[in-house]
Amino acid sequence: MPEILSPLALTQGLIRCPSVTPAEGGALSYLGGILERAGFAVEHPVFSEPGTPDIENLYARLGTAVPCLLLAGHTDVVPPGDAAAWRHDPFGGVVEAGELHGRGAVDMKGGLACLTAAVLDFLAARGPDFGGSIAFLVTGDEEGPAVNGTVKLLAWAAARGERFDHCILAEPTNPARLGEMIKIGRRGSLTATLTVHGVQGHVAYPHLAENPIPGLLRLAGALLAEPLDGGTRHFDASNLEFTTLDVGNPATNLIPGQAQGTFNIRFNDLWTPESLEAELRRRLDAAAGNAVRYSLAVRPTNAVAFLTQPDPFVHLVAGAIEAETGVRPALSTSGGTSDARFIKDACPVIEFGLVGQTMHQVDERVPVSDLARLTAIFRRVLDAYFPGHAAPQERA
Amino acid sequence: MPEILSPLALTQGLIRCPSVTPAEGGALSYLGGILERAGFAVEHPVFSEPGTPDIENLYARLGTAVPCLLLAGHTDVVPPGDAAAWRHDPFGGVVEAGELHGRGAVDMKGGLACLTAAVLDFLAARGPDFGGSIAFLVTGDEEGPAVNGTVKLLAWAAARGERFDHCILAEPTNPARLGEMIKIGRRGSLTATLTVHGVQGHVAYPHLAENPIPGLLRLAGALLAEPLDGGTRHFDASNLEFTTLDVGNPATNLIPGQAQGTFNIRFNDLWTPESLEAELRRRLDAAAGNAVRYSLAVRPTNAVAFLTQPDPFVHLVAGAIEAETGVRPALSTSGGTSDARFIKDACPVIEFGLVGQTMHQVDERVPVSDLARLTAIFRRVLDAYFPGHAAPQERA
Repeated sequence: MPEILSPLALTQGLIRCPSVTPAEGGALSYLGGILERAGFAVEHPVFSEPGTPDIENLYARLGTAVPCLLLAGHTDVVPPGDAAAWRHDPFGGVVEAGELHGRGAVDMKGGLACLTAAVLDFLAARGPDFGGSIAFLVTGDEEGPAVNGTVKLLAWAAARGERFDHCILAEPTNPARLGEMIKIGRRGSLTATLTVHGVQGHVAYPHLAENPIPGLLRLAGALLAEPLDGGTRHFDASNLEFTTLDVGNPATNLIPGQAQGTFNIRFNDLWTPESLEAELRRRLDAAAGNAVRYSLAVRPTNAVAFLTQPDPFVHLVAGAIEAETGVRPALSTSGGTSDARFIKDACPVIEFGLVGQTMHQVDERVPVSDLARLTAIFRRVLDAYFPGHAAPQERA
Repeated sequence: MPEILSPLALTQGLIRCPSVTPAEGGALSYLGGILERAGFAVEHPVFSEPGTPDIENLYARLGTAVPCLLLAGHTDVVPPGDAAAWRHDPFGGVVEAGELHGRGAVDMKGGLACLTAAVLDFLAARGPDFGGSIAFLVTGDEEGPAVNGTVKLLAWAAARGERFDHCILAEPTNPARLGEMIKIGRRGSLTATLTVHGVQGHVAYPHLAENPIPGLLRLAGALLAEPLDGGTRHFDASNLEFTTLDVGNPATNLIPGQAQGTFNIRFNDLWTPESLEAELRRRLDAAAGNAVRYSLAVRPTNAVAFLTQPDPFVHLVAGAIEAETGVRPALSTSGGTSDARFIKDACPVIEFGLVGQTMHQVDERVPVSDLARLTAIFRRVLDAYFPGHAAPQERA
C-alpha cells in the first residue's frame, strides 16, 4: 500500500530542492522516489543539445490500461533574485501564518505536489486496478530555454509507444482565487524585428543623409493603426506590443544609418504564424511604398494558438472544481504561453493549478489551505475520470 | 622687415605640430613666433574649467588704429583615427601630386596659414602704418568641448579693452570649389530628449501595463508633422531630425516602462531657443492630451541663429573672391555651427576658407594651388580693407 503524503509535505520537499533551471537540485529524484514507491515505473531521461545545458526529466507510468491520464508539470524554478529580500529562505519551505513560503510554491512545485498527493490518495483508496493508467511527465526545463524539456520528453515517450488520452498541466491558472479559471488553450506568440535602412550623415546636412527614424515611425504606426482582429469565441483579440525601439546613436549631431523596433504579437486561433507574417508584410509594404526601405525578421516560433474544445473532459474538471470550491471556473485562453502548447499535439490538454499572484516574485507563497483544496479537486478528477465499477467516491 | 613665408610652408609647419584637442602640440608657439617676428604683440592665455583640460590660446595684435580687422581660427584638430589607414603620416605634411596631406590641411591649419601668409605679405608691402590694426584670435579648443577657447578668449580680450570692427574666420566654407561660398551667419542648434512614461508589464497582460512606445510614436509624429517654418531670406527652413530612439529592452515578453527619443533642430533667425521650446511643447501637449505622459529635456545651447547683414564688408570680401577666382560666392548660412556664433557678439563676422570635402576624414588634404589662391584672396581683402592713402594695390 502506497504511502500517503500531505500536499504540504510534498511541496516543502520539492521547495527544499534548489532546482533553479537548469539544475535538477534533487527535485526529480525526490518526486521519482515517491512515485516509484507508489508502483510507478520511473525513468529519468536526460536530453542534450549543443549550446544548451543537459537537462534531466522524469517520466513515470502506472498501468497500461486505457484511458491514460497524463499529469504534467515542471520542477525547475526561476532564480530567487536577492535571497536577502525574502522574508524566509526561498528554499526553506517555511510556513508562516498559514502560508508556505518558497520559490516554486505556486509555479509550480505546489501544483505538482497536489497532483502527486491526489494520486497517492487515490491509489490508497482504489488500488492499482482502477480501470486505466496514470502517467507523470515532468521536466526540468520549462523556465529556461525549454529545449531539452517537454518537447523532447513527448517525442521520447511517443517513440516508446506511450499514448495519452487527456492531460492536466498544473500551472498556476487562477488570477486571484482558487477555482476561478481553467486554461483550455493558449494564444500563440510571435516576435519580429523591423529594421528601417537609411543613410548616415551630419544632422546639419540632412539632404546628404536619409534619416531612418521617420520611416520607422511610419511603419510602426501602420502596424498599430488597426486591430488585428476582434477576438473569437474562446480567445481575446490578438494584440501587438512594441517591446523596444533601438537606434543607440549617442551623437546628437549625427543622423543614424538604421533604426530598429521589436514587437511581440499574442495571437488567437484566427491566425497561424505564416498568415500573421503575411498580414504584417502587407501592412508594411502599403505604408513603406517606395519611400521606406525596411526589412522584417520574424523569429521562429513554436507557440501557435491552440484550443482544447470544451468537451466532456473539460466539463469533468470544471465540475470537480465547482464541487470543491463552489466556483464555476472560466474557460480561458488568456495569458502567456506554457508547455501546454507542446502537449496539445499528444492529447487534449487543460491547465489548472494554484493562484499565480506571487509567481516569479520575491516571497512567492501559497496558502496551505489552497494546497489541500487543490489536492481535493484533483482527487475528484481522478475519481470521475476512472469511475471503475463503482460510482465515483466522494471525499470524506 | 617681416619674413615672408609661403602658405604651403606655414601649413606644413602647423600640420607637423600634433595638436589634437586639447594638446597645443607646438602649433600656437610656432604661429606666435612668426607673428611676434612680424611685429605683433603676442599673448598665450591659458584657460581652465573644472572637468575640462586646460587649454592654451593665442591673441596677437599689431597696431592700435581703427579699423581693427580680426582674423580668427583654431590650431586644434580632430584625431587622425587609424594613422595606418592614411596614405601619408597625418602629421607629416607630405606633398604628393600637388596636394598637401595631413590632419588639419583644410580644417583649419590651411586657412589659418593663408591668413598669416597674407598678413606677412601685406606687411612686407605696406609696413606697419597701414591705417588700421590687425588682430589674431586663435584657439586650441574648437574641436573639443569649446569651453576654454573662443568664448573665454573674447571675454579676456574685451576685459583688456580690445575692440574689433570686423572678423574673418577661416573655416572651410566651400563645398567643392574655392570661392563658391561665404558663410554670413549660422543656424542655431537645439537638442532635446523626449521621454514617454508608461508602466512596465508582461506582454501577455497588456491591460496591466501601459506601453510607452505608441505614445512616443504619436509625439514624435506630432513634432515631424508640420515644418517649423519655410525658411527666411538668408536661411533655409528650420529642420528637426530625430537622432536616436532608445528603449533598450532586451526581453521580448516585457512591455517597457519608458521610451525615449532625442532630436536636434537646426533653426533659423525666426526662432530663439526659448520660442522654439515653446513651440515644441505646444505641439507635444496637443498630441499628448491626457493620454500620454511625457517629459521634455532641452539641453542648454549657446548656438543661436545669427546673421551678419550683407553690408559693405561682406561685399568687400565677396569682391576679392570674385576678382581672384572668377566665382561670385554664395552668401550662405547653411551647415553646422562654428565659433562664429561667439564672435558675432564682438563684431560682424564672416567665414571663408578652403574646400571642406576631406575635413575630419582619413587623407585630409588640400591642393597647394588652393593655398596660394586663398592667400591671394586674403591679401586682396587686406588691401581693400586698409586702403590707406593709396588705392588698393592689385596683386602682380
